[in-house]
Amino acid sequence: MDARFDLVLERTLDAPTDLVWEAYTKTEHLKQWFAPKPYRITECELDLRPGGIFRIRMVGPDNFDTGHGNAGCVLEVVEGRKLTWTSALGPGYRPAAMGEGCESFPMTAIITFADAGDGKTQYRAVALHRNAKDRDIHEQMGFQDGWGTTATQLEQLAKGLVNA
Amino acid sequence: MDARFDLVLERTLDAPTDLVWEAYTKTEHLKQWFAPKPYRITECELDLRPGGIFRIRMVGPDNFDTGHGNAGCVLEVVEGRKLTWTSALGPGYRPAAMGEGCESFPMTAIITFADAGDGKTQYRAVALHRNAKDRDIHEQMGFQDGWGTTATQLEQLAKGLVNA
Repeated sequence: MDARFDLVLERTLDAPTDLVWEAYTKTEHLKQWFAPKPYRITECELDLRPGGIFRIRMVGPDNFDTGHGNAGCVLEVVEGRKLTWTSALGPGYRPAAMGEGCESFPMTAIITFADAGDGKTQYRAVALHRNAKDRDIHEQMGFQDGWGTTATQLEQLAKGLVNA
Repeated sequence: MDARFDLVLERTLDAPTDLVWEAYTKTEHLKQWFAPKPYRITECELDLRPGGIFRIRMVGPDNFDTGHGNAGCVLEVVEGRKLTWTSALGPGYRPAAMGEGCESFPMTAIITFADAGDGKTQYRAVALHRNAKDRDIHEQMGFQDGWGTTATQLEQLAKGLVNA
Protein backbone atom coordinates (compact mmCIF):
# COMPACT_ATOMS: atom_id res chain seq x y z
CA MET A 1 0.00 0.00 0.00
CA ASP A 2 0.91 3.65 -0.45
CA ALA A 3 0.00 6.01 2.41
CA ARG A 4 -0.69 8.82 -0.06
CA PHE A 5 -3.43 6.90 -1.84
CA ASP A 6 -4.66 4.24 0.54
CA LEU A 7 -6.45 3.74 3.84
CA VAL A 8 -5.95 0.95 6.32
CA LEU A 9 -7.79 -0.40 9.35
CA GLU A 10 -6.13 -2.94 11.62
CA ARG A 11 -7.75 -4.69 14.55
CA THR A 12 -7.19 -7.72 16.71
CA LEU A 13 -10.54 -9.46 16.77
CA ASP A 14 -11.55 -11.67 19.68
CA ALA A 15 -12.55 -14.64 17.55
CA PRO A 16 -10.58 -17.40 15.81
CA THR A 17 -9.50 -16.97 12.21
CA ASP A 18 -11.68 -19.72 10.75
CA LEU A 19 -14.83 -18.17 12.23
CA VAL A 20 -13.89 -14.65 11.14
CA TRP A 21 -13.36 -16.02 7.63
CA GLU A 22 -16.72 -17.78 7.76
CA ALA A 23 -18.41 -14.59 8.97
CA TYR A 24 -16.81 -12.64 6.12
CA THR A 25 -17.44 -15.05 3.29
CA LYS A 26 -20.90 -16.52 3.90
CA THR A 27 -23.53 -14.10 2.74
CA GLU A 28 -26.03 -15.01 5.47
CA HIS A 29 -23.43 -13.75 7.97
CA LEU A 30 -21.92 -10.98 5.84
CA LYS A 31 -25.23 -9.19 5.42
CA GLN A 32 -25.57 -8.94 9.20
CA TRP A 33 -22.33 -7.06 9.89
CA PHE A 34 -21.06 -5.48 6.65
CA ALA A 35 -23.10 -2.26 7.01
CA PRO A 36 -22.44 0.00 10.01
CA LYS A 37 -25.74 0.09 11.91
CA PRO A 38 -28.27 1.66 11.51
CA TYR A 39 -27.41 1.03 7.85
CA ARG A 40 -28.30 -2.45 6.72
CA ILE A 41 -27.65 -4.80 3.81
CA THR A 42 -30.76 -5.65 1.83
CA GLU A 43 -29.07 -7.60 -0.97
CA CYS A 44 -25.80 -9.52 -0.97
CA GLU A 45 -24.07 -11.77 -3.48
CA LEU A 46 -20.59 -13.23 -3.11
CA ASP A 47 -19.14 -15.82 -5.48
CA LEU A 48 -15.89 -16.73 -3.77
CA ARG A 49 -13.54 -17.18 -6.74
CA PRO A 50 -11.44 -14.86 -8.91
CA GLY A 51 -13.80 -13.21 -11.37
CA GLY A 52 -16.84 -13.89 -9.15
CA ILE A 53 -19.44 -11.32 -8.21
CA PHE A 54 -19.37 -9.28 -4.99
CA ARG A 55 -22.47 -7.15 -4.71
CA ILE A 56 -24.01 -5.39 -1.73
CA ARG A 57 -27.01 -3.12 -1.52
CA MET A 58 -26.85 -0.94 1.57
CA VAL A 59 -29.87 0.97 2.84
CA GLY A 60 -29.80 3.64 5.53
CA PRO A 61 -32.26 5.00 8.09
CA ASP A 62 -35.66 5.97 6.63
CA ASN A 63 -34.91 3.53 3.80
CA PHE A 64 -32.36 5.89 2.24
CA ASP A 65 -30.75 3.78 -0.47
CA THR A 66 -27.02 4.45 -0.63
CA GLY A 67 -26.92 3.21 -4.20
CA HIS A 68 -24.17 0.76 -3.33
CA GLY A 69 -25.81 -1.75 -5.59
CA ASN A 70 -23.15 -1.99 -8.29
CA ALA A 71 -21.63 -5.40 -8.80
CA GLY A 72 -17.95 -5.67 -7.91
CA CYS A 73 -15.49 -8.45 -8.64
CA VAL A 74 -13.53 -10.90 -6.49
CA LEU A 75 -9.83 -10.91 -7.42
CA GLU A 76 -8.01 -13.15 -4.94
CA VAL A 77 -9.15 -15.84 -2.55
CA VAL A 78 -6.72 -17.52 -0.15
CA GLU A 79 -8.93 -19.71 2.04
CA GLY A 80 -8.99 -18.39 5.58
CA ARG A 81 -6.24 -15.85 4.90
CA LYS A 82 -7.00 -13.29 2.22
CA LEU A 83 -9.84 -11.87 0.17
CA THR A 84 -9.31 -9.15 -2.45
CA TRP A 85 -12.18 -7.54 -4.33
CA THR A 86 -12.69 -4.40 -6.38
CA SER A 87 -15.46 -2.09 -7.50
CA ALA A 88 -13.43 -1.08 -10.58
CA LEU A 89 -14.49 -4.33 -12.24
CA GLY A 90 -17.74 -6.26 -12.26
CA PRO A 91 -18.19 -10.04 -12.38
CA GLY A 92 -16.17 -11.76 -15.10
CA TYR A 93 -13.69 -8.86 -14.93
CA ARG A 94 -15.81 -6.48 -17.03
CA PRO A 95 -14.83 -2.85 -16.31
CA ALA A 96 -17.48 -1.46 -13.98
CA ALA A 97 -19.86 1.33 -14.96
CA MET A 98 -19.18 3.69 -12.07
CA GLY A 99 -20.98 6.80 -10.96
CA GLU A 100 -24.32 5.40 -9.88
CA GLY A 101 -25.27 6.37 -6.33
CA CYS A 102 -22.73 7.69 -3.88
CA GLU A 103 -19.88 5.42 -4.87
CA SER A 104 -18.23 7.82 -7.27
CA PHE A 105 -14.74 6.37 -7.12
CA PRO A 106 -13.47 2.84 -7.72
CA MET A 107 -11.75 1.03 -4.87
CA THR A 108 -9.95 -2.24 -4.27
CA ALA A 109 -10.15 -3.85 -0.83
CA ILE A 110 -7.48 -6.26 0.38
CA ILE A 111 -8.64 -8.04 3.51
CA THR A 112 -6.19 -10.28 5.37
CA PHE A 113 -6.73 -12.54 8.36
CA ALA A 114 -3.92 -13.97 10.50
CA ASP A 115 -3.90 -16.12 13.62
CA ALA A 116 -3.03 -13.85 16.56
CA GLY A 117 -2.97 -16.66 19.16
CA ASP A 118 -5.40 -17.26 22.06
CA GLY A 119 -8.26 -17.67 19.61
CA LYS A 120 -7.83 -14.14 18.25
CA THR A 121 -7.43 -12.87 14.69
CA GLN A 122 -5.30 -10.09 13.28
CA TYR A 123 -7.63 -8.38 10.82
CA ARG A 124 -6.33 -5.92 8.26
CA ALA A 125 -8.41 -4.07 5.69
CA VAL A 126 -6.64 -1.97 3.08
CA ALA A 127 -8.57 0.23 0.65
CA LEU A 128 -6.62 1.09 -2.51
CA HIS A 129 -7.61 4.20 -4.47
CA ARG A 130 -6.62 5.72 -7.81
CA ASN A 131 -5.12 8.81 -6.26
CA ALA A 132 -4.88 11.01 -3.17
CA LYS A 133 -8.13 12.82 -3.96
CA ASP A 134 -10.19 9.61 -3.83
CA ARG A 135 -8.38 8.58 -0.66
CA ASP A 136 -9.25 11.88 1.00
CA ILE A 137 -12.90 11.70 -0.09
CA HIS A 138 -13.15 8.20 1.34
CA GLU A 139 -11.50 9.28 4.58
CA GLN A 140 -13.89 12.22 4.91
CA MET A 141 -16.85 9.92 4.23
CA GLY A 142 -15.85 8.32 7.53
CA PHE A 143 -13.67 5.37 6.55
CA GLN A 144 -12.20 4.81 10.02
CA ASP A 145 -15.54 5.05 11.84
CA GLY A 146 -17.43 3.03 9.27
CA TRP A 147 -14.93 0.24 8.73
CA GLY A 148 -14.12 0.26 12.47
CA THR A 149 -17.79 -0.17 13.38
CA THR A 150 -18.19 -3.02 10.93
CA ALA A 151 -15.01 -4.69 12.25
CA THR A 152 -16.62 -4.71 15.72
CA GLN A 153 -19.83 -6.11 14.24
CA LEU A 154 -17.78 -8.77 12.40
CA GLU A 155 -16.04 -9.70 15.67
CA GLN A 156 -19.35 -10.03 17.53
CA LEU A 157 -20.87 -12.16 14.81
CA ALA A 158 -17.79 -14.42 14.52
CA LYS A 159 -17.70 -14.92 18.31
CA GLY A 160 -21.33 -15.96 18.21
CA LEU A 161 -20.47 -18.70 15.71
CA VAL A 162 -18.34 -20.49 18.34
CA ASN A 163 -21.31 -22.12 19.99
CA ALA A 164 -23.50 -22.24 16.92
CA MET B 1 -19.07 -12.05 -23.42
CA ASP B 2 -22.02 -9.84 -24.35
CA ALA B 3 -22.29 -8.76 -27.99
CA ARG B 4 -23.74 -5.38 -26.96
CA PHE B 5 -20.67 -4.43 -24.96
CA ASP B 6 -17.79 -6.50 -26.24
CA LEU B 7 -15.62 -7.11 -29.28
CA VAL B 8 -14.03 -10.35 -30.37
CA LEU B 9 -11.37 -11.40 -32.83
CA GLU B 10 -10.89 -15.07 -33.68
CA ARG B 11 -8.16 -16.51 -35.87
CA THR B 12 -6.53 -19.83 -36.55
CA LEU B 13 -2.82 -19.11 -36.37
CA ASP B 14 -0.33 -21.20 -38.29
CA ALA B 15 1.93 -21.88 -35.31
CA PRO B 16 1.75 -24.29 -32.37
CA THR B 17 0.14 -23.18 -29.12
CA ASP B 18 3.31 -23.27 -27.02
CA LEU B 19 5.10 -20.91 -29.41
CA VAL B 20 2.13 -18.55 -29.67
CA TRP B 21 2.04 -18.45 -25.86
CA GLU B 22 5.76 -17.75 -25.75
CA ALA B 23 5.40 -14.99 -28.34
CA TYR B 24 2.57 -13.44 -26.32
CA THR B 25 4.11 -13.64 -22.87
CA LYS B 26 7.82 -12.88 -23.32
CA THR B 27 8.34 -9.16 -23.57
CA GLU B 28 11.23 -9.42 -26.04
CA HIS B 29 8.75 -11.05 -28.46
CA LEU B 30 5.63 -9.14 -27.41
CA LYS B 31 7.15 -5.78 -28.18
CA GLN B 32 7.79 -6.89 -31.76
CA TRP B 33 4.19 -7.74 -32.68
CA PHE B 34 1.81 -6.08 -30.19
CA ALA B 35 1.58 -2.77 -32.07
CA PRO B 36 0.13 -2.75 -35.60
CA LYS B 37 2.96 -1.50 -37.82
CA PRO B 38 3.98 1.26 -38.42
CA TYR B 39 3.18 1.76 -34.72
CA ARG B 40 5.79 0.29 -32.45
CA ILE B 41 6.27 -0.60 -28.79
CA THR B 42 8.97 1.42 -27.08
CA GLU B 43 8.39 0.15 -23.53
CA CYS B 44 6.92 -3.14 -22.32
CA GLU B 45 6.54 -4.74 -18.91
CA LEU B 46 4.67 -7.97 -18.19
CA ASP B 47 4.73 -9.71 -14.83
CA LEU B 48 2.91 -12.94 -15.58
CA ARG B 49 0.90 -13.49 -12.37
CA PRO B 50 -2.43 -12.22 -11.03
CA GLY B 51 -1.86 -8.68 -9.76
CA GLY B 52 1.25 -8.26 -11.93
CA ILE B 53 1.94 -5.29 -14.16
CA PHE B 54 1.12 -5.17 -17.87
CA ARG B 55 2.37 -1.97 -19.40
CA ILE B 56 2.96 -0.98 -23.01
CA ARG B 57 4.03 2.30 -24.52
CA MET B 58 3.03 2.53 -28.16
CA VAL B 59 4.49 5.15 -30.49
CA GLY B 60 3.23 5.92 -33.97
CA PRO B 61 4.74 7.33 -37.16
CA ASP B 62 6.67 10.58 -36.69
CA ASN B 63 7.11 9.56 -33.07
CA PHE B 64 3.48 10.31 -32.23
CA ASP B 65 3.08 8.96 -28.70
CA THR B 66 -0.32 7.29 -28.30
CA GLY B 67 -0.14 7.78 -24.57
CA HIS B 68 -0.76 4.09 -24.01
CA GLY B 69 1.72 4.16 -21.19
CA ASN B 70 -0.62 3.50 -18.28
CA ALA B 71 0.11 0.41 -16.26
CA GLY B 72 -2.54 -2.31 -16.45
CA CYS B 73 -2.96 -5.44 -14.36
CA VAL B 74 -2.76 -9.16 -15.08
CA LEU B 75 -5.85 -10.98 -13.73
CA GLU B 76 -5.63 -14.62 -14.83
CA VAL B 77 -2.81 -16.78 -16.11
CA VAL B 78 -3.42 -20.34 -17.31
CA GLU B 79 -0.08 -21.45 -18.72
CA GLY B 80 -0.32 -21.88 -22.48
CA ARG B 81 -4.11 -21.45 -22.48
CA LYS B 82 -5.38 -18.13 -21.16
CA LEU B 83 -4.24 -14.64 -20.24
CA THR B 84 -6.62 -12.02 -18.86
CA TRP B 85 -5.55 -8.45 -18.18
CA THR B 86 -7.28 -5.13 -17.62
CA SER B 87 -6.58 -1.42 -17.90
CA ALA B 88 -9.21 -0.70 -15.21
CA LEU B 89 -6.67 -1.70 -12.58
CA GLY B 90 -2.95 -1.13 -12.23
CA PRO B 91 -0.38 -3.49 -10.69
CA GLY B 92 -1.34 -4.82 -7.27
CA TYR B 93 -5.01 -4.30 -8.24
CA ARG B 94 -5.00 -0.54 -7.56
CA PRO B 95 -7.83 1.15 -9.51
CA ALA B 96 -6.22 2.79 -12.53
CA ALA B 97 -6.12 6.53 -13.08
CA MET B 98 -7.62 6.66 -16.54
CA GLY B 99 -7.90 9.47 -19.02
CA GLU B 100 -4.26 10.03 -19.93
CA GLY B 101 -3.63 9.90 -23.65
CA CYS B 102 -6.11 8.36 -26.04
CA GLU B 103 -7.14 5.46 -23.85
CA SER B 104 -10.18 7.11 -22.39
CA PHE B 105 -12.08 3.97 -21.48
CA PRO B 106 -11.09 0.96 -19.38
CA MET B 107 -11.01 -2.45 -21.01
CA THR B 108 -10.44 -6.05 -20.02
CA ALA B 109 -8.85 -8.41 -22.54
CA ILE B 110 -9.40 -12.17 -22.33
CA ILE B 111 -6.99 -13.98 -24.62
CA THR B 112 -7.35 -17.73 -25.10
CA PHE B 113 -5.19 -20.19 -27.00
CA ALA B 114 -6.29 -23.70 -27.99
CA ASP B 115 -4.62 -26.45 -29.97
CA ALA B 116 -6.24 -26.54 -33.42
CA GLY B 117 -4.28 -29.58 -34.67
CA ASP B 118 -1.61 -29.72 -37.39
CA GLY B 119 0.58 -27.35 -35.42
CA LYS B 120 -2.02 -24.58 -35.50
CA THR B 121 -3.57 -22.50 -32.71
CA GLN B 122 -7.11 -21.25 -32.24
CA TYR B 123 -6.59 -17.69 -31.00
CA ARG B 124 -9.44 -15.71 -29.46
CA ALA B 125 -9.20 -12.18 -28.14
CA VAL B 126 -12.23 -10.71 -26.36
CA ALA B 127 -12.32 -7.06 -25.28
CA LEU B 128 -14.81 -6.36 -22.48
CA HIS B 129 -16.12 -2.81 -22.06
CA ARG B 130 -18.26 -1.01 -19.50
CA ASN B 131 -21.07 -0.33 -21.93
CA ALA B 132 -22.14 -0.15 -25.57
CA LYS B 133 -20.72 3.37 -25.99
CA ASP B 134 -17.18 2.26 -25.13
CA ARG B 135 -17.56 -0.78 -27.36
CA ASP B 136 -18.60 1.41 -30.29
CA ILE B 137 -15.74 3.85 -29.73
CA HIS B 138 -13.28 0.96 -29.68
CA GLU B 139 -14.80 -0.52 -32.83
CA GLN B 140 -14.57 2.84 -34.63
CA MET B 141 -10.95 3.22 -33.50
CA GLY B 142 -10.35 0.21 -35.73
CA PHE B 143 -10.47 -2.77 -33.38
CA GLN B 144 -10.85 -5.40 -36.12
CA ASP B 145 -8.09 -3.99 -38.32
CA GLY B 146 -5.74 -3.27 -35.44
CA TRP B 147 -6.16 -6.50 -33.51
CA GLY B 148 -6.30 -8.43 -36.79
CA THR B 149 -3.00 -6.94 -37.95
CA THR B 150 -1.34 -7.75 -34.65
CA ALA B 151 -2.71 -11.31 -34.76
CA THR B 152 -0.94 -11.75 -38.12
CA GLN B 153 2.23 -10.26 -36.67
CA LEU B 154 1.93 -12.61 -33.67
CA GLU B 155 1.54 -15.58 -36.02
CA GLN B 156 4.62 -14.59 -38.03
CA LEU B 157 6.71 -14.14 -34.92
CA ALA B 158 5.56 -17.42 -33.36
CA LYS B 159 6.30 -19.33 -36.60
CA GLY B 160 9.77 -17.88 -36.57
CA LEU B 161 10.39 -19.31 -33.12
CA VAL B 162 10.12 -22.88 -34.49
CA ASN B 163 13.67 -22.90 -35.74
CA ALA B 164 15.04 -20.47 -33.20
